[in-house]
Amino acid sequence: MAKTWGGRFSGKTDSRVEEFTESISVDRRLARHDIRASKAHARMLAHVQLLKTDECAAICNALDQIEARIDAGEFSFSSALEDIHSHIEQALIVMLGDLGRKLHTARSRNDQVATDLRLWVRDAIAEIDGHLVELQRAFVDLAQREREVTLPGYTHLQRAQPVLAPHLFLAYVEKLQRDRDRLRDTLKRVDVLPLGSAALAGTSLPIDREFTARELGFSDVSGNSLDAVSDRDFLIEYVFALSMIAVHLSGWSEEWIIWSTTEFSFIELPDQFCTGSSIMPQKKNPDVLELIRGKSARVIAGLNQLMILVKGLPLAYNRDLQEDKAALFDCHDTVSSCLAVAAPLVRATKLRREAIAANLESGFLDATTLMELLISRGVPMRSAHEAVGRLVRSSEERGCRLADLPQETFESVLPGVGRAVYEVLGVPQALAAFRSFGSTAPAEVDRQLAAWRRILGDS
Amino acid sequence: MAKTWGGRFSGKTDSRVEEFTESISVDRRLARHDIRASKAHARMLAHVQLLKTDECAAICNALDQIEARIDAGEFSFSSALEDIHSHIEQALIVMLGDLGRKLHTARSRNDQVATDLRLWVRDAIAEIDGHLVELQRAFVDLAQREREVTLPGYTHLQRAQPVLAPHLFLAYVEKLQRDRDRLRDTLKRVDVLPLGSAALAGTSLPIDREFTARELGFSDVSGNSLDAVSDRDFLIEYVFALSMIAVHLSGWSEEWIIWSTTEFSFIELPDQFCTGSSIMPQKKNPDVLELIRGKSARVIAGLNQLMILVKGLPLAYNRDLQEDKAALFDCHDTVSSCLAVAAPLVRATKLRREAIAANLESGFLDATTLMELLISRGVPMRSAHEAVGRLVRSSEERGCRLADLPQETFESVLPGVGRAVYEVLGVPQALAAFRSFGSTAPAEVDRQLAAWRRILGDS
Amino acid sequence: MAKTWGGRFSGKTDSRVEEFTESISVDRRLARHDIRASKAHARMLAHVQLLKTDECAAICNALDQIEARIDAGEFSFSSALEDIHSHIEQALIVMLGDLGRKLHTARSRNDQVATDLRLWVRDAIAEIDGHLVELQRAFVDLAQREREVTLPGYTHLQRAQPVLAPHLFLAYVEKLQRDRDRLRDTLKRVDVLPLGSAALAGTSLPIDREFTARELGFSDVSGNSLDAVSDRDFLIEYVFALSMIAVHLSGWSEEWIIWSTTEFSFIELPDQFCTGSSIMPQKKNPDVLELIRGKSARVIAGLNQLMILVKGLPLAYNRDLQEDKAALFDCHDTVSSCLAVAAPLVRATKLRREAIAANLESGFLDATTLMELLISRGVPMRSAHEAVGRLVRSSEERGCRLADLPQETFESVLPGVGRAVYEVLGVPQALAAFRSFGSTAPAEVDRQLAAWRRILGDS
Amino acid sequence: MAKTWGGRFSGKTDSRVEEFTESISVDRRLARHDIRASKAHARMLAHVQLLKTDECAAICNALDQIEARIDAGEFSFSSALEDIHSHIEQALIVMLGDLGRKLHTARSRNDQVATDLRLWVRDAIAEIDGHLVELQRAFVDLAQREREVTLPGYTHLQRAQPVLAPHLFLAYVEKLQRDRDRLRDTLKRVDVLPLGSAALAGTSLPIDREFTARELGFSDVSGNSLDAVSDRDFLIEYVFALSMIAVHLSGWSEEWIIWSTTEFSFIELPDQFCTGSSIMPQKKNPDVLELIRGKSARVIAGLNQLMILVKGLPLAYNRDLQEDKAALFDCHDTVSSCLAVAAPLVRATKLRREAIAANLESGFLDATTLMELLISRGVPMRSAHEAVGRLVRSSEERGCRLADLPQETFESVLPGVGRAVYEVLGVPQALAAFRSFGSTAPAEVDRQLAAWRRILGDS
Repeated sequence: MAKTWGGRFSGKTDSRVEEFTESISVDRRLARHDIRASKAHARMLAHVQLLKTDECAAICNALDQIEARIDAGEFSFSSALEDIHSHIEQALIVMLGDLGRKLHTARSRNDQVATDLRLWVRDAIAEIDGHLVELQRAFVDLAQREREVTLPGYTHLQRAQPVLAPHLFLAYVEKLQRDRDRLRDTLKRVDVLPLGSAALAGTSLPIDREFTARELGFSDVSGNSLDAVSDRDFLIEYVFALSMIAVHLSGWSEEWIIWSTTEFSFIELPDQFCTGSSIMPQKKNPDVLELIRGKSARVIAGLNQLMILVKGLPLAYNRDLQEDKAALFDCHDTVSSCLAVAAPLVRATKLRREAIAANLESGFLDATTLMELLISRGVPMRSAHEAVGRLVRSSEERGCRLADLPQETFESVLPGVGRAVYEVLGVPQALAAFRSFGSTAPAEVDRQLAAWRRILGDS
Repeated sequence: MAKTWGGRFSGKTDSRVEEFTESISVDRRLARHDIRASKAHARMLAHVQLLKTDECAAICNALDQIEARIDAGEFSFSSALEDIHSHIEQALIVMLGDLGRKLHTARSRNDQVATDLRLWVRDAIAEIDGHLVELQRAFVDLAQREREVTLPGYTHLQRAQPVLAPHLFLAYVEKLQRDRDRLRDTLKRVDVLPLGSAALAGTSLPIDREFTARELGFSDVSGNSLDAVSDRDFLIEYVFALSMIAVHLSGWSEEWIIWSTTEFSFIELPDQFCTGSSIMPQKKNPDVLELIRGKSARVIAGLNQLMILVKGLPLAYNRDLQEDKAALFDCHDTVSSCLAVAAPLVRATKLRREAIAANLESGFLDATTLMELLISRGVPMRSAHEAVGRLVRSSEERGCRLADLPQETFESVLPGVGRAVYEVLGVPQALAAFRSFGSTAPAEVDRQLAAWRRILGDS
Repeated sequence: MAKTWGGRFSGKTDSRVEEFTESISVDRRLARHDIRASKAHARMLAHVQLLKTDECAAICNALDQIEARIDAGEFSFSSALEDIHSHIEQALIVMLGDLGRKLHTARSRNDQVATDLRLWVRDAIAEIDGHLVELQRAFVDLAQREREVTLPGYTHLQRAQPVLAPHLFLAYVEKLQRDRDRLRDTLKRVDVLPLGSAALAGTSLPIDREFTARELGFSDVSGNSLDAVSDRDFLIEYVFALSMIAVHLSGWSEEWIIWSTTEFSFIELPDQFCTGSSIMPQKKNPDVLELIRGKSARVIAGLNQLMILVKGLPLAYNRDLQEDKAALFDCHDTVSSCLAVAAPLVRATKLRREAIAANLESGFLDATTLMELLISRGVPMRSAHEAVGRLVRSSEERGCRLADLPQETFESVLPGVGRAVYEVLGVPQALAAFRSFGSTAPAEVDRQLAAWRRILGDS
Repeated sequence: MAKTWGGRFSGKTDSRVEEFTESISVDRRLARHDIRASKAHARMLAHVQLLKTDECAAICNALDQIEARIDAGEFSFSSALEDIHSHIEQALIVMLGDLGRKLHTARSRNDQVATDLRLWVRDAIAEIDGHLVELQRAFVDLAQREREVTLPGYTHLQRAQPVLAPHLFLAYVEKLQRDRDRLRDTLKRVDVLPLGSAALAGTSLPIDREFTARELGFSDVSGNSLDAVSDRDFLIEYVFALSMIAVHLSGWSEEWIIWSTTEFSFIELPDQFCTGSSIMPQKKNPDVLELIRGKSARVIAGLNQLMILVKGLPLAYNRDLQEDKAALFDCHDTVSSCLAVAAPLVRATKLRREAIAANLESGFLDATTLMELLISRGVPMRSAHEAVGRLVRSSEERGCRLADLPQETFESVLPGVGRAVYEVLGVPQALAAFRSFGSTAPAEVDRQLAAWRRILGDS
């Protein structure tokens, strides 16, 4: 089939080489964006009179027909035609003859693919942002639903202090919000038109790049053609943003996998989100969470691949860059699918309130509050820490809670403290004692929850 | 030596464990930031009357003395004391007794280290940004100095079209500008105070976090304590920004390594930036460039490490996070040192103008301009491409330039084209023909150069 | 559709979850290996009388029919049926009813998939080894064909000493040989049967694992069921071996990309292995080499993904492991396709002997030989190095070769050396002077070449 | 200070460049190996009469003195002298004058550093192998000590089937054994002498490389000089072996971190291997395990760095390779320190037998054994699975164990089964029922344990 560059070549491309170098199996996914960019390019060519108005109309019309054929699954792809750009141009030539041969005026595949990719990433960011909002709303709704539940909070996976369940769920909302902020910042660097940079140096033809930028809704036009055709920062930065999302999801998955063990029994995952075992009839496994955790490896590695790919490439375009698309698409699809399944899973999950409450007094969750009481009575912090450490040790030896220690034990640590200690001991009292901004204090949590509901709107 | 947490423990820490778990060999580098944060914390405690005014003054004074001792190299470090935070607090207790034991009121190492790290990254960003500006200026000055030189531009490392040397150097200025933009965006997420989140849940003591934020110059206060102590996004995002810089530097290094071969002979690296061989007396090697290229691997891998580290960690703090600092510092130091040596190297390098000029007509750099001439005369782009491809083939067979082909050959391709073709053939004419925005057209390059000089100021 | 584990579940699996958790789109590739393992398992069950002889025959026969349908493209796949194992078992049940329900006796998907994967990797190793031999042979043949050509050898990409072209090509044969050795070592750890480990703990049924191992040609039987179902070492080690191959190919690609520049002009790549530019009619790009270089990033990242994936997983099987297959297959396919195209490319490439010879005297390739002459005359090595360094400097200043310096210049460095220096100066003489084992000495190279031809046999 | 290559240079090296390019801060660690290789090289030079016998003796004697000074901390290092090789050679020249200038005869830093690194890795492998054996012994001893304990076995972190504690601990012994096997295979490719390859092409001097190999205990001599100086496979393969060890340790750490939660309470970590909290007096954290898990990220990333480093490097030596050492040393130190602390931790840890036993009947660990009973009575496996699945569901609804279901319930599933079911129900019975090779059957576990004790010898 006709290559776009045959004139100078004497031998035909080896068919193994065609198979090896083709990208159509991957970049066909850019078809819609390629057509959109081509139509804008044609209109620009008409605007500067490199095409006649009716030529432009015929081209745009033909491109619409090609898009319709692709959408309908009636377009045939062949590795001999290399990539989506060649496929569409070739189809145009078949339809329009010499007129089709004019579209590639003042552009190269180098600026063309950079443009298509930016258009694609722009849409991808919007899609992921939508998923992030949905997951934030799911966590906020869960926070609302489980507003009254107190959980043990952990550091080092050891019981530390009590936290309100909504406080914990909102921690993930914060993380997801940073993910959204990163996407928004990334978008600024995506939102620049490279088209018109041609192969690497620009063109001698009288094009109007601002016109094309307006047509395609880009905020800015790239200022240096060598940079524009070699730059993949925007794409790598997007994949970085994706990998941070994946990492956040992996931590949440780990937490809930642990929570759904027999030993923790903090949550009940609905049957619809679990699968069983081919041999063990009693099993109900948190597969979705495990896969989300596992898939984060794929995204982290995708970012790694892209950075390795561009490392050490001289200016300007090098064919290595063809490999950017498979990694980009795979990372996007992976994160998008994880987010899409995470939101309904969060909505369908219930805290096992009785099981949680039954063990809540284990682990001395009130020890720090007791220490802070001593501090507020003037005991130096380090001395208070030491003293409460000893009280914990004797509780452990007796096998009782701090609240079960006799008053004289406390008096021996802080003479005159009286029964005040009992007012902060026990998990409910310890929780109620919190007051700092951003803490798990019930009033603080209510404030945060209300703020997020306002930000995220109804769901 | 006294741990900060001994009360509840019966056995002494195993010395192998002390060695294994210590971080003081790495985090001593946070000393200045830790002291700064501790002083702000002390002033806040005084502000809310958890310390008396004179207690606060004594603590701040003692911290200043500790800092002076550290700066003077008179402070002794021990792995038994775990980390920089314990070292400073312990020194304070030695100096102030019970008063020293009060400083840790309403804070934990979890929020303390997060605060120190954010202060450190804030400074680091400023340092790297300064280096980036210097390197941009070096490229701009080189562009100015070599304003008149025409280079072959490459795609696929094959000669493509002519470019002005300054156009090429400014491509790197663009890339570095995006690096600066990314740092600025990262800073927004660094610039949030976690202190006051305590261990994970906040505190029951009446602290004023806004006060601390003002003291330390943070724009915002973290809203969720569980998130604040577990969050390392800011640090990973910074290392991502570093790794993009490293990748940009690696591409430039590769280019200049190739340029300094005998075969290319585009640049003369000054002796002071090269090293020789222990066995081959004639060798002069571009070691600095090779090391910059090689060190990019270290930064890419550092980012990889951090993402692997935080993958799959449940809330809130886990000790794995201690490993964040070695990677952070190493990536920062690596990029900082590369940038610091890159700028003077760029300034000291000269293009080998004669060698470049001697071979400039190789490689048909004017072929595309010829094709664009045909297009502007109404030949469909694809047909023009095909025709020029054939002309190149016959030039190759004859071993001559396009400009050396006889007029009738061009007429056979485009009847009536006359001698116009000779006006765009030859590299100088081809270069002069460019005109699009962002292209290598001399006027465009002058415009860009002037703009960058304005943005970057004098150097 | 019927899951293999429905009994304990009340809700139906959510269709989004089915889509998210399915692996059939990836693991259908294991069909042949799964069927092979299932037939061996059935024969073992018959051997221990858990199946009757005719039951076993019916199952094996049905499995053969299923394989034929899959091969013929007549088997339908559905994400509702999760994976290839369920598809085949379900098809068996449809064909055989209750008898089909017996095949999964004394096995679990956990040991089943581990077995399939080991069978697959065993075949994959054989395939890659075959490609490696082919590429070795191509390099050996090229070495033979270009036996007489002398090339500049490089360190730091700077001209260093002369090397015979075959010496250089055989360096790659050495690297590829190590790749083969690594594959052979990997195979030892692949070649262990996990089947019979069941879900994680073995089984109470009287199976005979040695029988199954013999049927499937495994050398060993796994000794610990918990290890056997959780172990992915064999797979990761295989991908490591692949990534070393990819790295070797990337270095060779880089070298030849540089060699095919206008400036180097060392090789002529055949048109059939190059592609052109959509805009620049004269371009002939080394795309295949660039893609091989770029694809190495994919394999390095694939290895990274697998290690991240298994990091921090407790015993025994976790669903994260499902993600191992996509990475494994992708890395294998990538390396296999690179090797398959590399061998014919090497065979079709010619050294541009005239261009190489024309510049061979540039770069003082004989300086080290001169130094060694001085050493053999008793000049201390470091003094000889220093002296030749100064001679190079004066040659550079005069713009001449070392061989062009007058005799008195050499006498000033080594009184009495006479005309002996001229016998080692000039590239041909310098090359002829080599003699150490493994060096580029012509006799040594002939010896190596002969040895490799013997090892690799005819091609 | 005197560089080893100054003759050809006119400018002095820039001090910033000296700082940037130095490797002495890292490679001083090779001192002992460098001296060992230099002494062997001197003896070889004497053997072939490039040195006189007394010259060789003087050089070896001086090298011994230098080593003694380095060991005693009396040797001064300077970044101006680049690397350890230059430091030692320079010291030799200071001591011996012209004689010192002879040592570098017929070698280059390229083959010298490759030799030093191989010697170093050879020692490193022995060190790590020793640690691996110690950890295997610790697990075997723990297995012996906890021989009688039954644990719940997990898949997907859900309770699956009962396993004997020793069976589980021996799974790690298997994994570590594969690590040892990989090290042994790696050693084969480390154990090859590159010295004598000189810069890249060998030498014209009459050296005897077999002699040097014997002196240094290498089994083989490299066959191709270009390969020998560019090859870092041996080093990367070693780091791969290290990263597999790190990954194995990370999984074990994760498991024990989970086991040491309040909720699981499977193990009691000794106080000496834990640390506390600066704010929460009751905390006892499994820091060592968390750090081992976290440090695995460092090793995985170190491997990644090395592969990125060598990707796309043309022949032969490039300065990028200098970066190999920091990664190598860091990965080795990290894994070595993790292994060194892991063994005593394993030895000091106790299973909390009462807590484990108290909850052992949760999670239907006997369900699969029941299913296998039905299978052995002729129920097709899938039907048996379905039936037991339903029994589990009704047990869950009643809140009882399978063993607590009335006989008629079982009869409804398998008419005539009688009281046989009760003989396999309950964890002790289910465990006793296992029998397959490699399973958790008590006799099998005893067999494995005995075998490992025999292989590993006394500890």
